[in-house]
Amino acid sequence: MTDLNAGAETLRALHSGEMLVLPNVWDAASAEVVAEAGFPAIATASAAVSAMLGYPDGEGAPWQEMFAAAGRVARAVSLPVTVDAEAGYGLAPREFVDRLLETGAVGCNLEDTDHRTGELIDADEHAQRLADIRSASTEAGVPIVINARVDAFLGDRGIPERERLAEAIRRGRLYRDAGADCVYPIGVRRRADIAALVTELACPVNGNVGEELDLAALREIGVARVSYGPRFYFAALAGFRTAIENL
Amino acid sequence: MTDLNAGAETLRALHSGEMLVLPNVWDAASAEVVAEAGFPAIATASAAVSAMLGYPDGEGAPWQEMFAAAGRVARAVSLPVTVDAEAGYGLAPREFVDRLLETGAVGCNLEDTDHRTGELIDADEHAQRLADIRSASTEAGVPIVINARVDAFLGDRGIPERERLAEAIRRGRLYRDAGADCVYPIGVRRRADIAALVTELACPVNGNVGEELDLAALREIGVARVSYGPRFYFAALAGFRTAIENL
Repeated sequence: MTDLNAGAETLRALHSGEMLVLPNVWDAASAEVVAEAGFPAIATASAAVSAMLGYPDGEGAPWQEMFAAAGRVARAVSLPVTVDAEAGYGLAPREFVDRLLETGAVGCNLEDTDHRTGELIDADEHAQRLADIRSASTEAGVPIVINARVDAFLGDRGIPERERLAEAIRRGRLYRDAGADCVYPIGVRRRADIAALVTELACPVNGNVGEELDLAALREIGVARVSYGPRFYFAALAGFRTAIENL
Repeated sequence: MTDLNAGAETLRALHSGEMLVLPNVWDAASAEVVAEAGFPAIATASAAVSAMLGYPDGEGAPWQEMFAAAGRVARAVSLPVTVDAEAGYGLAPREFVDRLLETGAVGCNLEDTDHRTGELIDADEHAQRLADIRSASTEAGVPIVINARVDAFLGDRGIPERERLAEAIRRGRLYRDAGADCVYPIGVRRRADIAALVTELACPVNGNVGEELDLAALREIGVARVSYGPRFYFAALAGFRTAIENL
């Protein structure tokens, strides 16, 4: 418990210094690579982990298998680990927190998509769930780091393009006020949008690199944390594909 | 059972036609890549799977975790799957066969190294174990494909270089006569050695590519099966390492 507490505080503190860069991992060996390269924390990518396990992303894998994979990652490194926990698998708040802590992780991503419908969860409902998970974490005695993903910018979630920024700001504020440590509007491509989010949310924001946004740009804008999702895993698979097609 | 039987016979038949090339996989997604590329069977590499799970190779991982990983591979593809089962994890023959079949696999590698000592297992003792596993497989009703690895060419197994070929031939014959479908003298680097093994064993032989031995050379020599071990997995990790070091 002491270790988990220290890990959670270390991970939380990493959101307020230099920009935290998290090249997402998928298994124990990739986590070791990131640790050896000197990164200060380890993040999983659910799309990579579920592909590795043979399931579709979006809660296609049983949570037990996803958490077992997270446990193998956490066991492989002595750094704080944060788990991409999709939408939380419908677990009750305290059970979610307990199972997460059992893996050895001290933080999680939680997204506001309902994977049964493919649509966004009602924002107030999701904020309440985040608040409940925050309370459960306090009860459990480990202040887990919650990265609240806002899926408004994802093209298939039904939010018209011109409304995405406002909706992401609205959601991000609710999630922040519910106790999230960081807000992650995934899929923001435009510099102006991520800059507006950083200003309007006035809390740590998780960004992504993209055509308009390299690490330097994100740093300049004041993004607190950058993650890559399954990008590196899929690049590794693409390399494998090329290698075997050339045999 | 019918599917397993058909899979075992398909895999066995693949040892007597065109040379069988098996780019070894480590998880469900890499197995899908190999299947999509048109290879006719899937083989795991224990060194890759154990690294992925966070354990050292050489039976460092619990067999339950190794077999669970094999099960995820087998579930991901409709091709016959053969599992690198190290030295069989000390499981009794029938239990070994039953647990292997439960994964959905229809073949296995079994190596003649005692991982407690790092030395070769007595050849007659290992041949007896292979015969027992063959009998257990018959009892279980699925004729699994046994690829009997001969570790005499591995530098750290204590066989002087000038004795390796003779020892590998001696062991390979014993394993073949005990019921192995294929003999796999791992780590043979010289063309003359693998050619001698193919001639002297007069049964399917598993080779490796190397500096002196590309696929064309192995085909010419009459090698029945080629595998790559963890090579592609470690290449994927190396690519990941390079990518994140350049961030």
